[in-house]
Amino acid sequence: MSESEQEDENSTTIDRHMAAENPETARAVAQIKELRASIDNVDTAIVSLLAERFKYTSRVGVVKARAGFAPADYAREERQIARLHGIAEAAGLDPEIAEMYREFVVTEAKKRHKRIAEAGGNPGVLDVFA
Amino acid sequence: MSESEQEDENSTTIDRHMAAENPETARAVAQIKELRASIDNVDTAIVSLLAERFKYTSRVGVVKARAGFAPADYAREERQIARLHGIAEAAGLDPEIAEMYREFVVTEAKKRHKRIAEAGGNPGVLDVFA
Repeated sequence: MSESEQEDENSTTIDRHMAAENPETARAVAQIKELRASIDNVDTAIVSLLAERFKYTSRVGVVKARAGFAPADYAREERQIARLHGIAEAAGLDPEIAEMYREFVVTEAKKRHKRIAEAGGNPGVLDVFA
Repeated sequence: MSESEQEDENSTTIDRHMAAENPETARAVAQIKELRASIDNVDTAIVSLLAERFKYTSRVGVVKARAGFAPADYAREERQIARLHGIAEAAGLDPEIAEMYREFVVTEAKKRHKRIAEAGGNPGVLDVFA
């Protein structure tokens, strides 16, 4: 077994032995590999966008702190929920997943804020629904 | 008060009265408005990408089911964790948030799978770490 085959085996452990048995299985392995490459590209895009999102919400927090605004804006939250619901439906995504995504970024923003405060830093105003 | 002013008040409830008091506050309101527009754009992009991601993972599930592959691939999980960690650091995002994102999509995929199965449909193989 060559070095590159060894590497290939390491990267597709559960499928490779079955793939050796018949061409249909080999086709399935190739399909999964291709789909996973697309999934990886989607994840790269989403993680990069999340980085930008947290930069924006931090800036909102700073602006709010300086201006003395309240951190929570429930009207904004309502609009966001309705908006993401509509985008999800148009994109063919279960709206519940869009809502879970929104809750996820809000929860992470809260945790982030708490960590900064505990470390003695100034986290600004927590902009829960930024 | 005109109709459009009334609308504006409804859409920025917590900031508008303070904004009327001084120009600095008005500037802060304008900044928050601009940042929120960017946050909304990021959310539109992420929700659209999540729609694509769930389509891809569903397809992986179908291919796996047809080929009789195991649903979980722990080697794939390890690679994904390391990969997203690196992307997060390069993008200026706390890697913990990238890991939470990964756990979020896996959890949602599991719930989705369970719902389809409970409704009597064929959810294919649950591709936990697709």
